[in-house]
Amino acid sequence: VRCEVIAVGTELLLGQIVDTNSSWIGEQLASAGIDSHFQTKVGDNATRIAESLRQALDRSDAVIVCGGLGPTHDDITRDVIANVMGVELVRREDLVLKIRAMFEARGRDMPENNLRQADVPDGADTIAQQPGTAPGLVCPIGDKIVYAVPGVPSEMREMVLGTVLPDLRARSGEVATIGSRVLRTWGRGESGLAELLADRISELDNGGKATIAFLASGAEGLKVRITAKARDQAELDAVLDAEEQVLRALLGDLVFGTDDDTMESVILDLLAARGLTLAVIEVATGGYLTTRLSVHAAFSDVLRGTLIPCDEDLVDELAGARRADAEDGALRLAEAARDRFGADVGIAVGPVLPSAGGGVTVAMAWVVAEEAKAWSTSLPIDVERIRQYTGITLLNDLRLQLEPPFCC
Amino acid sequence: VRCEVIAVGTELLLGQIVDTNSSWIGEQLASAGIDSHFQTKVGDNATRIAESLRQALDRSDAVIVCGGLGPTHDDITRDVIANVMGVELVRREDLVLKIRAMFEARGRDMPENNLRQADVPDGADTIAQQPGTAPGLVCPIGDKIVYAVPGVPSEMREMVLGTVLPDLRARSGEVATIGSRVLRTWGRGESGLAELLADRISELDNGGKATIAFLASGAEGLKVRITAKARDQAELDAVLDAEEQVLRALLGDLVFGTDDDTMESVILDLLAARGLTLAVIEVATGGYLTTRLSVHAAFSDVLRGTLIPCDEDLVDELAGARRADAEDGALRLAEAARDRFGADVGIAVGPVLPSAGGGVTVAMAWVVAEEAKAWSTSLPIDVERIRQYTGITLLNDLRLQLEPPFCC
Repeated sequence: VRCEVIAVGTELLLGQIVDTNSSWIGEQLASAGIDSHFQTKVGDNATRIAESLRQALDRSDAVIVCGGLGPTHDDITRDVIANVMGVELVRREDLVLKIRAMFEARGRDMPENNLRQADVPDGADTIAQQPGTAPGLVCPIGDKIVYAVPGVPSEMREMVLGTVLPDLRARSGEVATIGSRVLRTWGRGESGLAELLADRISELDNGGKATIAFLASGAEGLKVRITAKARDQAELDAVLDAEEQVLRALLGDLVFGTDDDTMESVILDLLAARGLTLAVIEVATGGYLTTRLSVHAAFSDVLRGTLIPCDEDLVDELAGARRADAEDGALRLAEAARDRFGADVGIAVGPVLPSAGGGVTVAMAWVVAEEAKAWSTSLPIDVERIRQYTGITLLNDLRLQLEPPFCC
Repeated sequence: VRCEVIAVGTELLLGQIVDTNSSWIGEQLASAGIDSHFQTKVGDNATRIAESLRQALDRSDAVIVCGGLGPTHDDITRDVIANVMGVELVRREDLVLKIRAMFEARGRDMPENNLRQADVPDGADTIAQQPGTAPGLVCPIGDKIVYAVPGVPSEMREMVLGTVLPDLRARSGEVATIGSRVLRTWGRGESGLAELLADRISELDNGGKATIAFLASGAEGLKVRITAKARDQAELDAVLDAEEQVLRALLGDLVFGTDDDTMESVILDLLAARGLTLAVIEVATGGYLTTRLSVHAAFSDVLRGTLIPCDEDLVDELAGARRADAEDGALRLAEAARDRFGADVGIAVGPVLPSAGGGVTVAMAWVVAEEAKAWSTSLPIDVERIRQYTGITLLNDLRLQLEPPFCC
């Protein structure tokens, strides 16, 4: 089965929203072994949506249309699909009741507009999952199929995972399974990794069972992706396992995790396994580090608290007004974090300071039992990059300290 | 001039990278008054890149192809364009020298592969800006034009701004300027806004000078976008100004800002204008609120600090172990924030608590001089949504308190 994605919305073409939905859907299709050769963005224009839809149906078996199912006048995906199917829209009374009930439950008046969301192309099914008021659609056109899902990411994801992918899998006679595994690394740049893996990549190019790609991903580190195709999941897992072992032997402790691991989840797990608690003081990163740590369930057992001192007097009080240099200040902040929150481990990111080369310098430090380390790094002036780079670099250094043979 | 964008790269289809380049180019084209009706993502496959390119040339005057100009074997954009032009690739000696020199300057050996980047379709021009080793291309095909730019965002941006847009403007006989203004709102849903603006939208549909669209954007609030086309910037500004006034009269204090304003920048500006400082305690939002506040330059004058208590004992200490309920606890946290950091205004988000309906409840509060308010809200279990919704809701309520006629 070949499946295309069409993202609908003038705001996507104008760049007012980045189309992350298509990327996410592409990822799901790939891991389900479904080929996807084209993704198109088109504005809220009936003629052009219809043109894109007809073309996608010409060259693929299935199309996922994302967006344009809302209640307002520029939401025309329903109308266009009915037109391409050559049928009328039918107002479904069960959906009308459901939409009215949803507004009543929230104690809000229902704008009449919202009833447009109860209109369904004749012959189409609706998608049961309805976190919002816009139902998704499953629309057969000859032996092909069009799925329509809302542009709201959480609703789109629920419908794609719950209905669209299972339906596509059922339609697919194919037995091949494509899958990837990502090794998460930190400590070397992309070309450094390529050099370490050059021989292995040549071997794989000459008839290997897997392919390798690199991907720089900011605070997610540098990803090394292994991709393979196999007859079934068991064979796929075996190929990915074997290749992971080969690459780990070459990359050593540059690898901090796999797939959905993040540097933050890895650190929380390492600390939890050792029964250690953590406290944070962050200045330059302004809450970024804690925001990333606290999305993981393990944070509540490990993280005792974070202090973000913005006021200069407060920074001086915590870091010592007479600190020798930025590194010394960061070290005192890490100690202050540990002591103030009564934690075992303290980490700190100091303030952003101007550096000689026109960029900035940020100091960071960790304190674990009797061990401590402080250092600083020079960065270009770019808030997001400073946050990402400082955060992952600090946690990675703490990881190397906590991993065996360290014990405490 | 109509211009399409084709983003080339299998990693884009597989969702391993989000295609932010097309969005950025779309934004630049829009503000240059150049229509762009389709954007396509296609993999590193010669047949399918050629198909996309031919189709784009069929329905538009110009195409920007982004990506696939690198030195590796899967970078085939050059070859495909030569093929569609019906010409050969010519190795340009001046480019060979330039690429060799670039490697020498960096003291690195040049892989022979890199010389592929000196190949240019016969009859094409190269783009002078070359931050990397891949030159951009300007390729005439009949009376139409194809631009090829690298996928590396910084190189792509330099070439688009420096060469592609000026060239497109020069080709365009059109004098029209398209522009948008976004009103940022919070407090009503999309359909609620549509109802408030229904009459105005009908008026505009019947021959108005602007169009209106809605856009739900999480922590960015609900955007109302006004788009207009005019002969020049002055006329455009006048149309947008007039329409903004009409919509503001209908929306009242739902509007918290325009364009690049965020709820956080608005709050910081309001506090700064009143000489007030702010302190934050956030539990449920885990640093999210401070991370968003601290990207704005004004934060250093306004925000004294943030405390993120994760440990339950610490929450009890701050919120009062015998607090009457979640709202009472949030109020005490807001007071604790204000008092601990010596600030004028304290805001707080309490812990995530399970709620009767299967979701969660989060309490929040603000304290400003003698005034204080605490309330709670029920939300589905979704970390990101809890953070976004709670953050913008709390700050919006503080905004309504701080805006005139309040004075302190």
